[in-house]
Amino acid sequence: MRQRLELRSQEEHLDWLRAEGALPAGFRAGTTELEFSPKEAPRPSKMRVTLIALDRPTSSFAALYTRNAVPGHPVLIGRERLHEPSIGALLINNKISNVGAAGGRQDAERLCAAAAEALALEPRQVLPFSTGVIGWKLPVDGMLQALPQAVRGLQSDSALPAARAIMTTDLYPKLRRARVGDATIVGIAKGAGMIEPNLATLLVFVLTDADVPRDALRAALARAAQPSFNSISIDSDTSTSDALVALASGRRACPDLGAFEQALTEVCVALAEDVVRNGEGVHHVLRVRVTRAADETTARGLGKTIVNSPLVQCAVAGNDPNVGRLLCAIGKFAGQGAEPLPLDALRVAIDEHTIFENGAFTLSPDKERALVDALSRAEMYSSQAPKDGVHFVPPITYPPHERTVDIHVDLGRGSAEATVFGCDRTHEYITENADYRS
Amino acid sequence: MRQRLELRSQEEHLDWLRAEGALPAGFRAGTTELEFSPKEAPRPSKMRVTLIALDRPTSSFAALYTRNAVPGHPVLIGRERLHEPSIGALLINNKISNVGAAGGRQDAERLCAAAAEALALEPRQVLPFSTGVIGWKLPVDGMLQALPQAVRGLQSDSALPAARAIMTTDLYPKLRRARVGDATIVGIAKGAGMIEPNLATLLVFVLTDADVPRDALRAALARAAQPSFNSISIDSDTSTSDALVALASGRRACPDLGAFEQALTEVCVALAEDVVRNGEGVHHVLRVRVTRAADETTARGLGKTIVNSPLVQCAVAGNDPNVGRLLCAIGKFAGQGAEPLPLDALRVAIDEHTIFENGAFTLSPDKERALVDALSRAEMYSSQAPKDGVHFVPPITYPPHERTVDIHVDLGRGSAEATVFGCDRTHEYITENADYRS
Repeated sequence: MRQRLELRSQEEHLDWLRAEGALPAGFRAGTTELEFSPKEAPRPSKMRVTLIALDRPTSSFAALYTRNAVPGHPVLIGRERLHEPSIGALLINNKISNVGAAGGRQDAERLCAAAAEALALEPRQVLPFSTGVIGWKLPVDGMLQALPQAVRGLQSDSALPAARAIMTTDLYPKLRRARVGDATIVGIAKGAGMIEPNLATLLVFVLTDADVPRDALRAALARAAQPSFNSISIDSDTSTSDALVALASGRRACPDLGAFEQALTEVCVALAEDVVRNGEGVHHVLRVRVTRAADETTARGLGKTIVNSPLVQCAVAGNDPNVGRLLCAIGKFAGQGAEPLPLDALRVAIDEHTIFENGAFTLSPDKERALVDALSRAEMYSSQAPKDGVHFVPPITYPPHERTVDIHVDLGRGSAEATVFGCDRTHEYITENADYRS
Repeated sequence: MRQRLELRSQEEHLDWLRAEGALPAGFRAGTTELEFSPKEAPRPSKMRVTLIALDRPTSSFAALYTRNAVPGHPVLIGRERLHEPSIGALLINNKISNVGAAGGRQDAERLCAAAAEALALEPRQVLPFSTGVIGWKLPVDGMLQALPQAVRGLQSDSALPAARAIMTTDLYPKLRRARVGDATIVGIAKGAGMIEPNLATLLVFVLTDADVPRDALRAALARAAQPSFNSISIDSDTSTSDALVALASGRRACPDLGAFEQALTEVCVALAEDVVRNGEGVHHVLRVRVTRAADETTARGLGKTIVNSPLVQCAVAGNDPNVGRLLCAIGKFAGQGAEPLPLDALRVAIDEHTIFENGAFTLSPDKERALVDALSRAEMYSSQAPKDGVHFVPPITYPPHERTVDIHVDLGRGSAEATVFGCDRTHEYITENADYRS
């Protein structure tokens, strides 16, 4: 397992990001910002447009998109372009997700065409991505005017400006890298709410200079998505715009596809956990490991039910080891099917402390204190009384550590397992989402 | 549809409850309170014990219990006693749910035996119910000492003291009545969190003097539960102790079983809506009607997905008509199955305002303002800045009105429909549940 960071300041975090952020060979990235007046809202707003371009179009690209049945126009276009022989650039905007907006398909096509022209590509060699408010129309004219600035700004040094530019309610950029032989894999991600990727929200771009064929890249990405982006939930809402993309420039040899997939999975799991850690209002990251299940679907489903329980989430927020709610969530999942899941061999632990086995709780005042300590140690920050009385603002803009609340559910009835990441539910989440658009 | 209340004060609410609360013929109710020191917690705590007794045991009783696979001991006992020839009393405590506690079954049995002895019944003629913290052990000795006081207090006037005594985090008692011929149906309910049918949560007792045979009562209750307690969600957590019970004393003739079922359904739907309205931290009640679905399961499932979306819940809390989140929730549900649900005929409206049809949003600044107005009208209260900076306390202890946020989703693809009740997600919910036990 990777070493878990301990960071003391935003500056330390930025230093770390800068050191990790060097682009793999064959890629350039550029961003620009524009102001616009949404016709749906009373006030002007700002948007960032980001280009990620390959020096040469590549046939080795892969993308997984949301399962939401009302996907954004960029998702619909992107799915079609999976069949194209090659891709040369990604065009990304934040602020507006281009979902359900009249004329949204044409808007996305016009932007792709303009980017293609500037980069000497075909329009179908550009993949569009949009994230932000659902329902608003893209300010296409303004975006077309801003695009040349992003093209002029293309640089081959760092992925960090792009990681920052694609953010919406994220508090800080998310970036991870891994090496495989001489090749590098760098992933960036945005997403902080409306997150239960089944595969608006979650955009992940993984860039590698490894020479990996298209089919191998697609198979590896599909598998890497399972323990990473398909195993997290912030608020159980599957967004309309989720996309996980991998591009391989092929500039570096990749003698071992197994090692490549391992490195790719490592980047994806770390980024997925980053997304949860930077989730809206998150104080604690929950890591739920379900073992000895009949199958992986059961293990993952049970883990998701636990992390999505509002009552578990609130208890964790309060550093309150309300273990009854944990059992309630397990029982809810186990009772859902036609046949209840057998729970006679159930054992539940938080950190190293067993709290339930042989059909009954094993609680004591000492254990209670130990659990409170475990929860407190994993807390990233606590709520600060808001200056105006009701609007809670997170006091940190970097991840102070990567500690988690570790919950282990042993079903004792099989050999499958899964690990799921989730978070607590706090005043900062309510503040963020009860007044997001204004 | 019943007339919806507008109430100006707690006193007005209490007057209304008193007027509605007369017990049907053949029933008595008594309650008592005790102090105890839970061995799992640092501080003493209070519990109320309630008895509801029939003048004569009845063969006509019905009960539906939670589907949670870790049910409380009272649920396990109650399920067995469904096969008994007759029931004479209900024994109810709040504060501790008797779930997963070692020796919990024997504890419940001892209490039933003591109540039976005091009432000249067999122990198996008493149904036990417990609601409250999961995992703690019942203070059986203290409860046995307190029980005679509840027996001495049995009175045949009003169900209101019982409705109040079974509360946990409920802000106010919930009680509804209906008439059918000369007979009366009175229902009381408790439950404010861990509701999709932590506090073990939902307990509903429906008492009637109508002369209805056991089989008819059970069939009617099972059907009445569908549009009522199976159609609500406060936080999607299915409790370990939910129970919906009906007892018929048979003292009044019931010439028309259809009219009886209609009245029973009316009581159940009104109580279910009351439970949501008094849900933890609830500012708005959501009423989602899904029409022209292929089947009722689809309609109810889609409605539940909408009311359980944290992002929809937060938007409503902020009187923010963030219609994109509504579409996102619909798309999430529609994309979950093996085959996506067809949405080409989808139309969505809030109150009388259509916001989506023909594949696109139909928004305008005027419509936005109208939607904000609609949300504001349905608000029961807004958050008050907490005195200590972080703990939010609801400023009301009665339901000021019964207005709802009405969402209509027309799938245009069938003839089935369902109506689901849910609520918003607020700072008061977080405060309540991040520090419930202390």
